[in-house]
Amino acid sequence: MAPREGLATSGRLEAFSDGVLAIAITLLVLDLRLPEHRPGELLHALGAIWPSYLAYGAAFASIGVIWLNHHAVFTRIRTVDRGALGINLLLLLLASVMPFPTSVLADALRVGDLADQRAAVGLYGLISTLTAATWLLLYHHLHRNPQLAETHLPADYFGLQRRRAVTGIVGFLLATVLGVALSPLVGLALFIALPLFYAITSEGGRPPA
Amino acid sequence: MAPREGLATSGRLEAFSDGVLAIAITLLVLDLRLPEHRPGELLHALGAIWPSYLAYGAAFASIGVIWLNHHAVFTRIRTVDRGALGINLLLLLLASVMPFPTSVLADALRVGDLADQRAAVGLYGLISTLTAATWLLLYHHLHRNPQLAETHLPADYFGLQRRRAVTGIVGFLLATVLGVALSPLVGLALFIALPLFYAITSEGGRPPA
Amino acid sequence: MAPREGLATSGRLEAFSDGVLAIAITLLVLDLRLPEHRPGELLHALGAIWPSYLAYGAAFASIGVIWLNHHAVFTRIRTVDRGALGINLLLLLLASVMPFPTSVLADALRVGDLADQRAAVGLYGLISTLTAATWLLLYHHLHRNPQLAETHLPADYFGLQRRRAVTGIVGFLLATVLGVALSPLVGLALFIALPLFYAITSEGGRPPA
Amino acid sequence: MAPREGLATSGRLEAFSDGVLAIAITLLVLDLRLPEHRPGELLHALGAIWPSYLAYGAAFASIGVIWLNHHAVFTRIRTVDRGALGINLLLLLLASVMPFPTSVLADALRVGDLADQRAAVGLYGLISTLTAATWLLLYHHLHRNPQLAETHLPADYFGLQRRRAVTGIVGFLLATVLGVALSPLVGLALFIALPLFYAITSEGGRPPA
Repeated sequence: MAPREGLATSGRLEAFSDGVLAIAITLLVLDLRLPEHRPGELLHALGAIWPSYLAYGAAFASIGVIWLNHHAVFTRIRTVDRGALGINLLLLLLASVMPFPTSVLADALRVGDLADQRAAVGLYGLISTLTAATWLLLYHHLHRNPQLAETHLPADYFGLQRRRAVTGIVGFLLATVLGVALSPLVGLALFIALPLFYAITSEGGRPPA
Repeated sequence: MAPREGLATSGRLEAFSDGVLAIAITLLVLDLRLPEHRPGELLHALGAIWPSYLAYGAAFASIGVIWLNHHAVFTRIRTVDRGALGINLLLLLLASVMPFPTSVLADALRVGDLADQRAAVGLYGLISTLTAATWLLLYHHLHRNPQLAETHLPADYFGLQRRRAVTGIVGFLLATVLGVALSPLVGLALFIALPLFYAITSEGGRPPA
Repeated sequence: MAPREGLATSGRLEAFSDGVLAIAITLLVLDLRLPEHRPGELLHALGAIWPSYLAYGAAFASIGVIWLNHHAVFTRIRTVDRGALGINLLLLLLASVMPFPTSVLADALRVGDLADQRAAVGLYGLISTLTAATWLLLYHHLHRNPQLAETHLPADYFGLQRRRAVTGIVGFLLATVLGVALSPLVGLALFIALPLFYAITSEGGRPPA
Repeated sequence: MAPREGLATSGRLEAFSDGVLAIAITLLVLDLRLPEHRPGELLHALGAIWPSYLAYGAAFASIGVIWLNHHAVFTRIRTVDRGALGINLLLLLLASVMPFPTSVLADALRVGDLADQRAAVGLYGLISTLTAATWLLLYHHLHRNPQLAETHLPADYFGLQRRRAVTGIVGFLLATVLGVALSPLVGLALFIALPLFYAITSEGGRPPA
């Protein structure tokens, strides 16, 4: 009987996760909002919210890459246990929280107070780092429970994936420190670049077949 | 013919339920919202909405556990009848209403009036208790209609699950009474703890295989 | 080749429709919103928005029944053509618009101006009647294109379903007229009762097996 | 092994895309919002936001047609590679951004300043044109990577689809120019008409079977 080794096949887990990620990524648009402006100044107002566009891009890339990773991991999982369910819920919590630090960061960059921008970069970086740490947790759990993986998988597959997660943690920590200590815009640029880099080097850095 | 005993296989019911639960859990983020604050006071403002974080955690845990339960029940159902469809819609109604009492509770805790906090704890507890009662209704319906269950299921499976639902009702009633009569924060702490406890002891308290 | 008679199997159509209906039904919660109130008056404020609860109930029942009908129809469809896709999109448009008249109706009932309440009941009734008319269109299209139906279906199945749709149109028109001419609250009560009645008598009024 | 030629089967990609498109199309309703109005003036207020209804219709048609196209393409794809995943994410980004230019356009038309209306038409047209260009990118990628397509597909299928995408780009560019230079309302009318025309002539303009 299938549910002996794990709690369930991963079908519905994927469907629910797809739902949460799809919603979180789409809700980001609610923060693309024009401030009050006088008639005739729409073009100016559209330009004034440029930080919102950048923050939107960063958050869209982040959640997009979470989905890509999720997709890649779950094609390699045969069944899930309680631990994987819990870690997955934590991952979804962090992804679905994302619109909050994104909106805080965009607001701080628009208003322009440096202390606020540093706090906002710190918040965004904290959530991103926690997300990367949750990936580490997931890969570690899957590495320790090989009975959850597809049988044709190389034995050390999830062990190797852990390294990518550690890179992610270090990368986001560094981006956060640079953003807080040096320049919030440098931090934001790294928040956009990191997921793109992550997406391109996924599948262990092998070139696409 | 399959639809003789029940109304339909449960595939689309699960998909629709996954959708509603995924959206309800993700919409919670819309209430993580900073109040107006002066430039340079972002860090302070982020701290001032701590009740929102706790309420978010409680509601995320609640809906997350609803999904876990839903997942566990529907792997044991072969087909659904009209009664199950109706009870499921009621469950989705209560889950999708969840962002409302959550937002009311967070606001009341932030503003600080004790009478309001008691009312807010009462509202949140009422919805949670009704949700637990709806689980009792579902398990009872499935217990009375064994033709809906997977054939390999132990005869008393849903009968036993009813006990868990009763525990949930009692637990949330108690948390509500303590929150209203004693301290709203104690109530909130229990609202967070109950679903976590519920998640860990699910599957009848057996340790994960 | 399958796509000869129709455009596609209905799998993804169902998934997309489930998504839209799930979101529309869940977005309704965003209109459960407390008006500004003084500290200590939360309980009063919670009571003052009773029309929002009723409107929420009516809209939740409406979209819930659309999903039940959708589910019932698509278990009887083998494939969809362009006409069915178009009618389905129209149905989704009306369902996803639902939160708007619901919010307008709740606001009008709370504020209390009779002319506004009549206009709001008229708007809500218009959308509901158009929805029922779209069901008629769908059943008619399926009746005229028997190659879309599952082969084991009684020949006149969709012809008979058309009668239910006509009943729905008449019912919502009547509720609208009564709500506008007689009393908005009577209209609202009928808006809640009609979908419930519709749900119970679905499947042609046969008792659940 | 299936993942040799491509990265994955397209099942979850479709589910995630369905989710994002379903949410984007449903979130449009959040911009159907009445302005503040005096008691007794609801009917007037409902009439005053007619630009919102038109913009809603245009955006609903746009996202609806994206879904129809997506559905048509992915029944002809057997597997996806990294390039297709990336282009698909870009398409979802543009679709999920749609509520923003829609809201900007509706506001500008209601307030009535001509310079603002031109800017709003320009923004809406820009996003629509970029979306059509992304379709071109996708068809081009699929044309160049025939190993991703279903085997029974005519060799030049995606090559021919590129022409439709080019028509779309030209059409939206023209609508934007006319809307900005001549009349915003003409632009809006074309924004509604283009997706409808596109939907009817899809499948290469062949009449429905």
